[in-house]
Amino acid sequence: MPLPVCGITMGDPAGIGPEILLKAAAEPKVRAKCHLLAVADLSVLEQTKGAIESQLELVPVSDVTTAELEKLSTHQLGVYDLQQLYAEELQYGVVKAAYGEAAHSCIIKAIDLAIEGRIDAVVTNPINKEAINAAGVEHAGHTEIFAAKTNTKNYAMMLVHDSLRVVHVSTHVSLREACDRVKKERVLSVIRLAAEAVKGIDGTYGSIAVAGLNPHAGEHGLFGTEESEEIIPAVEAACSEGIKVEGPLPPDTVFSRALGGEFSAVVVMYHDQGHIPLKMAGFQVDPDTGKFGEVSGVNITLGLPIIRTSVDHGTAFDVAGKGIANHKSLVQAIEYAVRLYES
Amino acid sequence: MPLPVCGITMGDPAGIGPEILLKAAAEPKVRAKCHLLAVADLSVLEQTKGAIESQLELVPVSDVTTAELEKLSTHQLGVYDLQQLYAEELQYGVVKAAYGEAAHSCIIKAIDLAIEGRIDAVVTNPINKEAINAAGVEHAGHTEIFAAKTNTKNYAMMLVHDSLRVVHVSTHVSLREACDRVKKERVLSVIRLAAEAVKGIDGTYGSIAVAGLNPHAGEHGLFGTEESEEIIPAVEAACSEGIKVEGPLPPDTVFSRALGGEFSAVVVMYHDQGHIPLKMAGFQVDPDTGKFGEVSGVNITLGLPIIRTSVDHGTAFDVAGKGIANHKSLVQAIEYAVRLYES
Repeated sequence: MPLPVCGITMGDPAGIGPEILLKAAAEPKVRAKCHLLAVADLSVLEQTKGAIESQLELVPVSDVTTAELEKLSTHQLGVYDLQQLYAEELQYGVVKAAYGEAAHSCIIKAIDLAIEGRIDAVVTNPINKEAINAAGVEHAGHTEIFAAKTNTKNYAMMLVHDSLRVVHVSTHVSLREACDRVKKERVLSVIRLAAEAVKGIDGTYGSIAVAGLNPHAGEHGLFGTEESEEIIPAVEAACSEGIKVEGPLPPDTVFSRALGGEFSAVVVMYHDQGHIPLKMAGFQVDPDTGKFGEVSGVNITLGLPIIRTSVDHGTAFDVAGKGIANHKSLVQAIEYAVRLYES
Repeated sequence: MPLPVCGITMGDPAGIGPEILLKAAAEPKVRAKCHLLAVADLSVLEQTKGAIESQLELVPVSDVTTAELEKLSTHQLGVYDLQQLYAEELQYGVVKAAYGEAAHSCIIKAIDLAIEGRIDAVVTNPINKEAINAAGVEHAGHTEIFAAKTNTKNYAMMLVHDSLRVVHVSTHVSLREACDRVKKERVLSVIRLAAEAVKGIDGTYGSIAVAGLNPHAGEHGLFGTEESEEIIPAVEAACSEGIKVEGPLPPDTVFSRALGGEFSAVVVMYHDQGHIPLKMAGFQVDPDTGKFGEVSGVNITLGLPIIRTSVDHGTAFDVAGKGIANHKSLVQAIEYAVRLYES
């Protein structure tokens, strides 16, 4: 099988995206698995390269083909240059409409390249919501941009850290609206997406856990009725389709069980029900700096016609431009894109 | 300062409470810090003692005074015997009204002993909600029983694991009702309780974080208004009282920050917002057995006129009576009771 081409977006130029992109592209283990194409502003990458003393040679690529990218050595990085920003203007750690627009254009271009089959997967760097909103982009985040651009109605966000994978029934809505969105059809749909994603990642179907919405999964109706009215019917329907699925389970212990290997993925009912355990497992504060030293985890959009993975951290404006950003999550995101391509 | 007397309740006799009580009472580091009084059914403890081959001598104590308890050696355990059950009837792992009633009576007696000043703290073992409800007790759990019995209106549940402490604005209600309960006065009250508890545990006032209710703490109103309408006013009011407090913070990263030492406690808006990170930090599945091998963490009720701490795990009916239960959480609960007594 030929190596896949992974397009990596720049992310918000005022954040750590450009830096971790260059760092990840310098990793031999990454280059051994795929061809890389940065979808970015070349001048931003050039400035970042100087700031972090990267040895990579940045090579503009306008004709995106595997053949062109194969010509590059692992000391080179192909860049699809959107030419929107000039590095001398760049200020780290600030929200600007121009930066939001540049970050958004990279995403849109990367999606187009994937739809055209010129790249095999899109791996995204963090954006700033205020900046993209200031640029006139209404979406809450990457996931929604990918869904809209690919005209996908039935999608879900998966977060991964080691053996813990969570798939969200809803994400960027208020907690009250998240409660409203716990409906049988949606839960069933997300169970199906989770089961297929596990197959894509592990090569085999695994066991899916479904978390309850309420404390103790509702405690037999004492603390809410969504379990009996919506979640249990969805789990039963999924079982009848042959999916190995269990739930609704008490939300406070299901994640330790999944980390321990009992489940291949956990379907969660709202943003923080999935994000809290993932970031507990994957994020660690460095006691010396008081900043996140270890940020590990990958975000995968399920249900799209193209492969899309992402870091699961933000722009980290507070450390941008300092050369100290950790690129582990981006390396993992590229590795997951390759796994999904190979499955 | 004389050693405090900690009363330890039996918990549901069909669960692991009696076993971990005997195991904790056999720990020299526990006995060095306090006098223990089991508030239990002596016959249940005797049967458990035989099952786990404990060497402790169980000594009935009817006149609960420090002087009486000081007479006991560390190879003995004083037992206030409620004489409700007889061990030959005992079946592990089953829900029975009689067991719920026995467990409830131990709690009520322990509270009475604390109110009378005969013991200095109550440390509780897990109960089964169905069993106590079958016995006619309407409360959702220990916390509510303690509040009602001591006529306390203003209380909150704190969970502790190492440097991570969470204090709940609400606990055993549906997630929709939890959203309704995010009100300025209640949030402010819980911030105050958290600040005082940190003083009690650490000896100094620390820094309190307040989590948002919604994803990204509402993202400036994009995902809900509780942050701007209720939480921010509460945080501002607490600041104006001199409490060192920060928030509302994004719920998905605040717990890693607290574990890293940035905050002495996190005020959380609902049961699972606090329980998920605590149990991620404290619970680990044993890969050999598939069961929870490590269960670490303490539950403390704040705002009561008496000291009350508890294990933060359940009855573990599936391992009850097998002699393999882990008593670490109970030991920690006793240690925290002593710290709160000494402060």
